[in-house]
Amino acid sequence: MDEAEVALIVGAGPGISASCARLFSQQGVKVAVAARDANKPALKALARDHGITLIACDASVPESVAAMFDEVSRTLGPPRLVVHNIDGRPRDVFRKSIIEVDPAAVLTTLTNSTFSAFLVGQQAAKAMLSLEGRDGHRGTIVFTNASAALKGYPRSGAFAAASHGKAGLAQSMARELMPQGIHVAHVPIDAAIGWEQPDGSRAHRLAGEAVDDNMAHPDRIAELYWHLHRQHRSTWAFEVVLRPWTENW
Amino acid sequence: MDEAEVALIVGAGPGISASCARLFSQQGVKVAVAARDANKPALKALARDHGITLIACDASVPESVAAMFDEVSRTLGPPRLVVHNIDGRPRDVFRKSIIEVDPAAVLTTLTNSTFSAFLVGQQAAKAMLSLEGRDGHRGTIVFTNASAALKGYPRSGAFAAASHGKAGLAQSMARELMPQGIHVAHVPIDAAIGWEQPDGSRAHRLAGEAVDDNMAHPDRIAELYWHLHRQHRSTWAFEVVLRPWTENW
Amino acid sequence: MDEAEVALIVGAGPGISASCARLFSQQGVKVAVAARDANKPALKALARDHGITLIACDASVPESVAAMFDEVSRTLGPPRLVVHNIDGRPRDVFRKSIIEVDPAAVLTTLTNSTFSAFLVGQQAAKAMLSLEGRDGHRGTIVFTNASAALKGYPRSGAFAAASHGKAGLAQSMARELMPQGIHVAHVPIDAAIGWEQPDGSRAHRLAGEAVDDNMAHPDRIAELYWHLHRQHRSTWAFEVVLRPWTENW
Amino acid sequence: MDEAEVALIVGAGPGISASCARLFSQQGVKVAVAARDANKPALKALARDHGITLIACDASVPESVAAMFDEVSRTLGPPRLVVHNIDGRPRDVFRKSIIEVDPAAVLTTLTNSTFSAFLVGQQAAKAMLSLEGRDGHRGTIVFTNASAALKGYPRSGAFAAASHGKAGLAQSMARELMPQGIHVAHVPIDAAIGWEQPDGSRAHRLAGEAVDDNMAHPDRIAELYWHLHRQHRSTWAFEVVLRPWTENW
Repeated sequence: MDEAEVALIVGAGPGISASCARLFSQQGVKVAVAARDANKPALKALARDHGITLIACDASVPESVAAMFDEVSRTLGPPRLVVHNIDGRPRDVFRKSIIEVDPAAVLTTLTNSTFSAFLVGQQAAKAMLSLEGRDGHRGTIVFTNASAALKGYPRSGAFAAASHGKAGLAQSMARELMPQGIHVAHVPIDAAIGWEQPDGSRAHRLAGEAVDDNMAHPDRIAELYWHLHRQHRSTWAFEVVLRPWTENW
Repeated sequence: MDEAEVALIVGAGPGISASCARLFSQQGVKVAVAARDANKPALKALARDHGITLIACDASVPESVAAMFDEVSRTLGPPRLVVHNIDGRPRDVFRKSIIEVDPAAVLTTLTNSTFSAFLVGQQAAKAMLSLEGRDGHRGTIVFTNASAALKGYPRSGAFAAASHGKAGLAQSMARELMPQGIHVAHVPIDAAIGWEQPDGSRAHRLAGEAVDDNMAHPDRIAELYWHLHRQHRSTWAFEVVLRPWTENW
Repeated sequence: MDEAEVALIVGAGPGISASCARLFSQQGVKVAVAARDANKPALKALARDHGITLIACDASVPESVAAMFDEVSRTLGPPRLVVHNIDGRPRDVFRKSIIEVDPAAVLTTLTNSTFSAFLVGQQAAKAMLSLEGRDGHRGTIVFTNASAALKGYPRSGAFAAASHGKAGLAQSMARELMPQGIHVAHVPIDAAIGWEQPDGSRAHRLAGEAVDDNMAHPDRIAELYWHLHRQHRSTWAFEVVLRPWTENW
Repeated sequence: MDEAEVALIVGAGPGISASCARLFSQQGVKVAVAARDANKPALKALARDHGITLIACDASVPESVAAMFDEVSRTLGPPRLVVHNIDGRPRDVFRKSIIEVDPAAVLTTLTNSTFSAFLVGQQAAKAMLSLEGRDGHRGTIVFTNASAALKGYPRSGAFAAASHGKAGLAQSMARELMPQGIHVAHVPIDAAIGWEQPDGSRAHRLAGEAVDDNMAHPDRIAELYWHLHRQHRSTWAFEVVLRPWTENW
């Protein structure tokens, strides 16, 4: 390819997003990472160490998402690879019964997860449709999702609704956009995410959950996303269900 | 049963809601119908002819939903049968491409459909848990849904997200509430709704769609809902996929 | 209706089949029950008490199935309601690991369950297509299925394959036959079947499983099947997922 | 890795199997390909050009499958990668209505596809459990499947049953074997397979179907399978749904 591709990763936790940023950057891609708070020290270190552009964005606000894509397109170029990696589940809906969960937190879950996936997907589609296809491939949109996209667990109604909603959106977008040269991939990860930190301790996504050897490693997930982006349009994967070997499903 | 049961139907179009109101009333149930605009002449006629209580409610607003359940419980008694029959899709997301659909309309779709299903489901669960079980059955919550709950069609991202979201919510609620004596049923209807009007002309739910002999008749759907409410808890149907004989799926 | 309908129930355990035979007979239907061994005392008693015709049939053998339909059509008339109620799982595949299960037993599971469903479905379709529609409805074919149709449990590969296979067959037949006036319904029952016997003791389908208050009662399942057969073609249920209130799914 | 891995590909058409054989061989793997007729000139050429071992096997016969695994283990070593790539659909079930399809051909479809998947999966599991894990990974079993695994099309009952059955088997095996270090992957390919031949003409899997630019290319599918085999057990993909960009689904 003549020119460096551009990737935009929306959602900026220390897990999948950071792993994607590092891997894509190593592959010669110009990478932007968007986060609500782009001033977190860990993000700044990631940006500095890997030449990554940080962008502040509230992905549940239409104007903020549009501004983020404008900025990326203007400074790096229109992205060919966009990852929506927002869980969006506020702590106060976690394992709450349907009776006791706060309606405001449920609405926040829907807007942070499903609605932001729509906003990011819409702008990504617009940006990619402005690009010429390379072997017919204009770009790739990856939606990270959770096991709640596949199964509605008890005491988890808000998250089940948001995750199923994101799955339905991804399927509709795939049917609409794949014939236009945009690869839409839906990746429900039926696992907690965990990894070792440089000091040998273990980090994980959800406080309060056990950390063990068998959590899904974000670097491996980034490798899958890169593989998806490199697939030929004759055999695009629409859905990949990821699980660690020990997952009870 | 000693005392008349109470049913609450949320959403008040001339199709499924009106058919349910008539049938449940004929079965001796005290029926309330909630609509955003409870002053519509057709609703007033329905109420007058069948002794139905009308309630004004914006089902996407937590306080409005809570007030509606308070009013029903106070005037008729806590409902044993609640039907969430809101499509919630604004006209301006209908068959719009992901590129051109207005974000505000997408958010409205999510709140009118998925979030209102949560609000109604939450209040229904609270009301039913206050009731004693009859043969272990405290009550029934039916979520009407669309084929978009089963498949994400192109140019239909907002509706796919909202309908999938409602499906995920229903499944989570079923897993949580069925062991507590509440029958949660999810009914995706893979059809347009249509019926003959008293003057012999045909009515249907969606303006702009062809009306023909083979649309799903709302009276038949009401019969199914009544059958679901009468099922024994040893064999509750969680999901019923309805289709007319000619549906192309 | 002018003339008594005919129903054929294939599979003749003491659970769902017997409940269907009794209920359909009470509804004025002429009922035939087919079993591998039509000489079982319990079957003979059922036949005597409810005026039911017994037919010997090995439903995994094409000629035997064809002969059974010939006999029913000749003696009672072509059936308008056919229930395939064969589990078909030999005891020796039950909870066996993939390593230790006997290949011959796996093949028997496939032929007893999936292949017999095809054979019965094919003959049922032929018989029904010879009938005139009543309000456009020629007949109903119900496939009883198990939770293994929805989920492949570990140590259950043969049964998962057979049950998924039956589900795929039912879906294909529904798409093909519903436009021709034949209602095809798939009913995965996510439960063990259990009921009280006249002497107050409890019976159940699978020896070795706990019997408790919460098993699916076959009389309730028969009621659902009758409801399905009475549905109008504008709103046929293709799939009904049944669960008892306490089922862990 | 110290020693060359062994791969066994069951089913030997000129499409996916040949592409897998070439790619795995290029990766340094010792490859065996099993076919009913191992004497086909195209297979012999493949074997000669890429150093591949050919084995004659009827994969629907238990003894034949056991003998094939014995031979591979004895001559090359126990396989760490097994691909079940048999479609198994005889020409005479293809697009036949449920009424007209020959029962014998339906049974052949079930045994060639679903039952052979079980036989190959069982022997693969046995062979892999004898191997030591590499980073906890003993081996990978890939089941190629068709869109009929996801949807039962009309006039396709036999193939829907067989493909759904294979999907159920794969899911059960994944749940059982992944905790034992065996990666089971299910790959429904919602596409016809097509590719250019060395002489510039186009080949494809199913005679009678249109060949165009947008069929799934078997070389790309082989790349996916290799990626799956190289995944870390913390993030195994259980299911990958493949589609070409133009597929109508």
